[in-house]
Amino acid sequence: MKKYVAEFIGTFALVFYGTGAIIVNEQSNGSLGLIGIALTFGIIVSAMIYIFGNISGTHINPAVTIALVVGKLTSLKDASFYIFAQLLGALFASILLKFTFPENLTLGATIPSSELIQSFILEFVLTFFLMLTILGVTSKKEFSNIAGLIIGIVVTGIILFAGPISGGSFNPARSLAPAIVSGNFTALWIYITAPTLGAIIAMFIWKGLNKTE
Amino acid sequence: MKKYVAEFIGTFALVFYGTGAIIVNEQSNGSLGLIGIALTFGIIVSAMIYIFGNISGTHINPAVTIALVVGKLTSLKDASFYIFAQLLGALFASILLKFTFPENLTLGATIPSSELIQSFILEFVLTFFLMLTILGVTSKKEFSNIAGLIIGIVVTGIILFAGPISGGSFNPARSLAPAIVSGNFTALWIYITAPTLGAIIAMFIWKGLNKTE
Amino acid sequence: MKKYVAEFIGTFALVFYGTGAIIVNEQSNGSLGLIGIALTFGIIVSAMIYIFGNISGTHINPAVTIALVVGKLTSLKDASFYIFAQLLGALFASILLKFTFPENLTLGATIPSSELIQSFILEFVLTFFLMLTILGVTSKKEFSNIAGLIIGIVVTGIILFAGPISGGSFNPARSLAPAIVSGNFTALWIYITAPTLGAIIAMFIWKGLNKTE
Amino acid sequence: MKKYVAEFIGTFALVFYGTGAIIVNEQSNGSLGLIGIALTFGIIVSAMIYIFGNISGTHINPAVTIALVVGKLTSLKDASFYIFAQLLGALFASILLKFTFPENLTLGATIPSSELIQSFILEFVLTFFLMLTILGVTSKKEFSNIAGLIIGIVVTGIILFAGPISGGSFNPARSLAPAIVSGNFTALWIYITAPTLGAIIAMFIWKGLNKTE
Repeated sequence: MKKYVAEFIGTFALVFYGTGAIIVNEQSNGSLGLIGIALTFGIIVSAMIYIFGNISGTHINPAVTIALVVGKLTSLKDASFYIFAQLLGALFASILLKFTFPENLTLGATIPSSELIQSFILEFVLTFFLMLTILGVTSKKEFSNIAGLIIGIVVTGIILFAGPISGGSFNPARSLAPAIVSGNFTALWIYITAPTLGAIIAMFIWKGLNKTE
Repeated sequence: MKKYVAEFIGTFALVFYGTGAIIVNEQSNGSLGLIGIALTFGIIVSAMIYIFGNISGTHINPAVTIALVVGKLTSLKDASFYIFAQLLGALFASILLKFTFPENLTLGATIPSSELIQSFILEFVLTFFLMLTILGVTSKKEFSNIAGLIIGIVVTGIILFAGPISGGSFNPARSLAPAIVSGNFTALWIYITAPTLGAIIAMFIWKGLNKTE
Repeated sequence: MKKYVAEFIGTFALVFYGTGAIIVNEQSNGSLGLIGIALTFGIIVSAMIYIFGNISGTHINPAVTIALVVGKLTSLKDASFYIFAQLLGALFASILLKFTFPENLTLGATIPSSELIQSFILEFVLTFFLMLTILGVTSKKEFSNIAGLIIGIVVTGIILFAGPISGGSFNPARSLAPAIVSGNFTALWIYITAPTLGAIIAMFIWKGLNKTE
Repeated sequence: MKKYVAEFIGTFALVFYGTGAIIVNEQSNGSLGLIGIALTFGIIVSAMIYIFGNISGTHINPAVTIALVVGKLTSLKDASFYIFAQLLGALFASILLKFTFPENLTLGATIPSSELIQSFILEFVLTFFLMLTILGVTSKKEFSNIAGLIIGIVVTGIILFAGPISGGSFNPARSLAPAIVSGNFTALWIYITAPTLGAIIAMFIWKGLNKTE
């Protein structure tokens, strides 16, 4: 039970912080900028890993949870409760942000800034490398104290790169919640399919490169 | 005795660096920006944890000290001396800043930029996650070398997010000292109550999630 | 075989992320800025070290591979396959970027902004210190968990410094691929010779300072 | 002998990178900004600690060396050779920068932007905390892998804060070399006396707080 609560609070924090930073940036004439927003997302991911890592493993991302099921590192039963908790936490964050900033219309939703194919490629390729990073740093005991920091830094890095094009989601729950609460579902399918595919393929590549003969 | 001196110097450093960076930013046409200010606050917190962590535990924040009393991790007697030393150190920093920058009027005080409820929610929710981070990274021996870095990074992250709205305090001592020395007590109650409540509730959630049955 | 795949994917990631960030910056009116670009490059290097470090050692840079051959830390046979994989990965990244951003003309190629001698000196001196950093952090077991982070940070630092002058390459593969795909070979020789020389000389200095008598 | 070479190369790197970044910032219409310059300084300090830490201890700062003599952690004989090597390395860096950027007039020299007393106080107080940080992270074995990173981050933090006022030196060698090569000795005495005093007083406070009874 505790691990589902951890996924709920962790995903709530991710969406409240991250999309909240986008809203605050809009309210304050861009005082955070892309770098400030990317840092905020990365930092909250790091924090959640250090807080809930030993309780739930801190997935806080349905794409990660699904890839871990494919790689047989998470049970299907756990995964369904995890994804439910993640979606609930994300939704709760978007609702609290709507309450706190009632005048904001998009609530930090991710919307492609140009061609859909660009956003699809970036969301796909960068979630692929995010998933490889997660597998890389959590697979060795000596990295256990640094894993949360590195994953957060990589989240910052991929948002810096993809932010101006796709918004930088890499996480279906993080895109779904503001879309639902703001009622804007433009290109939402990209943010559900591309990260999930990227994470699953990363899992196969990782298994291939690390299997012992 | 040494631990009270450590809390005094640590909180002095936090307020001198942090609110000093806000003053320098104002004097230099915004050359630090929100990101520079947020980094400065986070870095000084990290530094103090590495310097005084094994002497006093480096609370340097009355909200943290009170939550640790509630969680029975600090004695009431120690807490009162800690908070006294923190307030004294913060006050001394604001006085030295007033002496160094006599033309500055607000001394880095935190003042809500719009609706009070927005500032209250952000100070409350973000101190809640700051306190969870502190408890998360200090509860495991393997994180002992990285704890100071992570707590500092999270301080940077929450100032990036809340800075444009509430000023980003999360610390009654940090808000009280510039308010007293500059004589501006606008909405000071928010910065005393919201962080303290957020930290206390984080302590209860943490105890609930980590108690062994 | 696996280590060559690792070098291929790693250099692909470096060029896709890094030069991709330069392209995205151009498409979005400079929303990343020099700092955002430098962070993106550093972060992807860190990520690749944590992902592939124990498979290939994560060279992802022909200058580093050549210096390691000179220092007898890599065999000549391995080095030739490594460099081939690096060039192939870089080329594949530039081609995917061309497909994703067909309107972009330079694809993040490095071109000196003024006197060639300035770019040569910076590429030479900074690759020298990058190589010393690599040797420093990988030579001690206690640094094994932090090595990837430090090398990435140093990559960020040298791009911040040299970026406005030379473009900040320090890596022949990273400069060659966008030059080939965009058909612009201006001053390419600098980015092949200066980093390679800098890395080799760093290897000699390191051996001299660390040999046991 | 090797440790003196290490101090020479280390201080060369610090001044070449750091003041070089200031020069590049001037040549490129401020593309680094205060944050980019502060990051560059901090990163090169971190790199030098990981490269030369086990050879010379990486002082690369006469104020630090003098404070360590006062604290009886370095011999007077070693200290004189260290300081000589530091000054020589710094001078060599400023000369190479003059050769590389002949049109630049100040070479990254530190010059107070307003009242001398402001610069004196900031250089004094911030070197005090820099020295405490150095003593804090190098005094415990468990921090050995993170020490270089933390010291570099604190260097970044104090330059962010003091940069717009004093230029952010905290190091007599770093200020002396560009002053000599550019022939501008304005207020140089501040950058020699204030950091040295701050470092020495930090040593006494540290000894007081950490002596075992």
